[in-house]
Amino acid sequence: MNDAQPTENIVDPSLEADVFSRNCSSREILQNVTSRWGLLALVALLDGELRFNALRRRVDGVSERMLSVTLQSLERDGYVRREMLQAIPPRVEYSLTEAGTQVAQRLSGLIELVEAQVDEVAGARAAYDGR
Amino acid sequence: MNDAQPTENIVDPSLEADVFSRNCSSREILQNVTSRWGLLALVALLDGELRFNALRRRVDGVSERMLSVTLQSLERDGYVRREMLQAIPPRVEYSLTEAGTQVAQRLSGLIELVEAQVDEVAGARAAYDGR
Repeated sequence: MNDAQPTENIVDPSLEADVFSRNCSSREILQNVTSRWGLLALVALLDGELRFNALRRRVDGVSERMLSVTLQSLERDGYVRREMLQAIPPRVEYSLTEAGTQVAQRLSGLIELVEAQVDEVAGARAAYDGR
Repeated sequence: MNDAQPTENIVDPSLEADVFSRNCSSREILQNVTSRWGLLALVALLDGELRFNALRRRVDGVSERMLSVTLQSLERDGYVRREMLQAIPPRVEYSLTEAGTQVAQRLSGLIELVEAQVDEVAGARAAYDGR
């Protein structure tokens, strides 16, 4: 009856990752990179490293706290690198790792597609709501 | 505090959809297709149409209610088609539209990548937690 158990403990390492399986850790990783703010932060960093405040302006609407939590989680997963630069005052910059770049490129492709579908989706909604 | 940032990062000069803008409808559409269950339902349907219960078994862990809400939202956005088949008892089948197929293919590529990164992410987490 203990279903709040860390997934790493029950994953059989001999099995391939499968996001369709509720206990596979890949599902949680996928959720981190496709979360509302995680996705936008990753894609924003595709253009190059950014300081916290610059990233926050780019990801319009995110709170300081949510961006901080999001970046920490992406850093822990190895997708984002956080670097403290020697300067006065000290600066912190965020950038993508190699794994993060790969994920961000896929997400960027998805965003391009969805942005191109906006009119089509608006039409579908109007049709659905009107029937 | 304005620390010299390229203006193209904060202002989209065109009227095109931009998920980085908090009020753009593309952001909401993106959230529907990358939601925990929306993403998995779309990719599950890439293999062909499925009935509700079959889809629910495939998307391991989803509740009946959440799957129903998710499919309704994807149907409204024009990504999923819901068809009532003449049979006894009547059957309802879900399938992808053309737009849904395009999105699901991108999501499937993302899933493949993340599944391949599971070991790397586990290593990054261990390093992060141990420092």
